[in-house]
Amino acid sequence: MKVLVTGTSGLIGSMLVNSLSSRFEFSGLDAYRSDRAPDVPTVIADGSDYEAIAPAFEGVDGVVHLAANAPVETPWLDVLKNNISTTHNVYEAARQHNVKRVVFASSNHAVGNFEMDEPYSRIRVGDYEGLAPGEFPVIDNLVPIRPDSDYGVSKAFGEATGRYYHEHFGLEVACLRIGTVNPQNSPAGSVRSLATWLSHRDQAQLVSQCLTQPLGFEIFYGVSDNTWRFWDTDHAKNVIGYAPQDNAEDFR
Amino acid sequence: MKVLVTGTSGLIGSMLVNSLSSRFEFSGLDAYRSDRAPDVPTVIADGSDYEAIAPAFEGVDGVVHLAANAPVETPWLDVLKNNISTTHNVYEAARQHNVKRVVFASSNHAVGNFEMDEPYSRIRVGDYEGLAPGEFPVIDNLVPIRPDSDYGVSKAFGEATGRYYHEHFGLEVACLRIGTVNPQNSPAGSVRSLATWLSHRDQAQLVSQCLTQPLGFEIFYGVSDNTWRFWDTDHAKNVIGYAPQDNAEDFR
Repeated sequence: MKVLVTGTSGLIGSMLVNSLSSRFEFSGLDAYRSDRAPDVPTVIADGSDYEAIAPAFEGVDGVVHLAANAPVETPWLDVLKNNISTTHNVYEAARQHNVKRVVFASSNHAVGNFEMDEPYSRIRVGDYEGLAPGEFPVIDNLVPIRPDSDYGVSKAFGEATGRYYHEHFGLEVACLRIGTVNPQNSPAGSVRSLATWLSHRDQAQLVSQCLTQPLGFEIFYGVSDNTWRFWDTDHAKNVIGYAPQDNAEDFR
Repeated sequence: MKVLVTGTSGLIGSMLVNSLSSRFEFSGLDAYRSDRAPDVPTVIADGSDYEAIAPAFEGVDGVVHLAANAPVETPWLDVLKNNISTTHNVYEAARQHNVKRVVFASSNHAVGNFEMDEPYSRIRVGDYEGLAPGEFPVIDNLVPIRPDSDYGVSKAFGEATGRYYHEHFGLEVACLRIGTVNPQNSPAGSVRSLATWLSHRDQAQLVSQCLTQPLGFEIFYGVSDNTWRFWDTDHAKNVIGYAPQDNAEDFR
C-alpha cells in the first residue's frame, strides 16, 4: 500500500515512516527538507499552493495528513494558510487523484473546551478527589465541537471537510483527535499528560489500523490506555480494532 | 442599540435594515456600494482585510454578520477569502471593540447532507407518501455537522469560531442556519421551499430576537412555521421566543 505522509519532517510524521516502513511504501510531502526521514522520497512544496502539491498524490493509495502548524497558540494568519488552506488542498488533491483514504491529524483541541468543565478541569491538574477512573462520562466522537483556539477551529474545519468529501465523493476519512505526543515519548512532564498521553507505538498502531481496516467517515481519539483518560477509545476499538498497549500511569 | 450589519447590500441585509430601522440604529459594512440601503452609513471595505474593516466596529453594540459569497456552488478560493477569512475577522473585530453580541448568518448547508437521508430526501422533492407532518424527527441544533459543499464547510467554520469566541472571550453568539430566503418572498418556486422557506418577516423577527433576548452561544434554524418543515424551531422558541408567523403551505 502506497501511503503519502504530509509533514514527514515532523515529530509524528518521522516517527511513523520510520516505525511502519515494513508495512507501507511511504512517500512524503513537506514544506521543508529534513534529515528525520532520509529514506522517504519527499516532495518539497507549500501546502497552500494546490498546483505545487498535486503531483505528490499521483499513484497513492492512502494519505496521512499531518502537515500543519502544531502549536495551539499558532497565530490566525498561519492557521489560515498552513492548516486551513493546506488541509483543503490535501483533500482536494486526494479526490482528484482517486486516493482511497485520508487519515487526518485532527486534535483534541477541536473539543478542548470540555476541559473547562468538571471533572476534566480537575483531572487535567491532578485533582482526583472523589473521582474514580472509568466512572465518569468520557468525551466521545459525538460531542459537539468546542475549539479552544484558532488552531482548534482549524482542526474542526478539517473534520467538517473530511465529512463533506466522504459523503459527496466517497473518500474514506479517519479524523484522529490526537492527544499528547512528545519527543521523549513519556507523560512524565505534565500532570495533564497522565490523562492525555499517546505513546509512539500506540500512535503508530492507530494510524496503521486507520489505513488498513474498513472505514467510512470516522472520528477517533488518539490516546493511550491511560488510567485517567477522559477521551473515548471504545469507538476506535469497535470500528478498527485499536488496542492501545501503554498506560501513562506506568510512568508515574 | 447600535447594530452593524455586514453585507448591507445583500438580499437579507437590505431587507433587515429597512424593516427593523425603528428598533435599531444601523450601520453597514460591505464590499460594494449599493442603493439598497441608502440611509445606512456604510463602510466599504474588503472583509478579508482586518485593518480595513476594524473601524466599522467602533461603538457598536451588536453585529449581524451576513457578508459572504452566498451561492452554495461558490468556488473554494472565494469561500476561503470571503467566507472564512472575513468571518474570522468579523469575530475578531467584535472582540477587539468590546461588541457584546454577534448574530452569524450560518446556513442549512452546514448540515445539508441530512437531506441525503429519509424522510428528508423525499420531503425535499415532494414525495410525502406515508409521512405525516410533525411525526418524523426534525434536524436540530445538536446534530453533527454534515456540510454539503465548501460553502457549507465555511458555515460550520463560522459556528465553530463563534463557539470559541463565546467560551474564551465571552462574546454572545447566535448562529442562524438560514433556510430559503428569496427576493419574491415566496416558496412557490420550488417544492423543497415548502419545507425550507423563511419569510422576510420571520427572518426579521428571528434576527431581532437574537439581538435583544438573553443569549450565550446558540444555534437556531431560520425557517418559517412550514407544515413540511424538517428543521427544529422549538429551540429558538424556548431560548429567544421566536414565533414564526408564516407557513409555506399557504402559498401552494
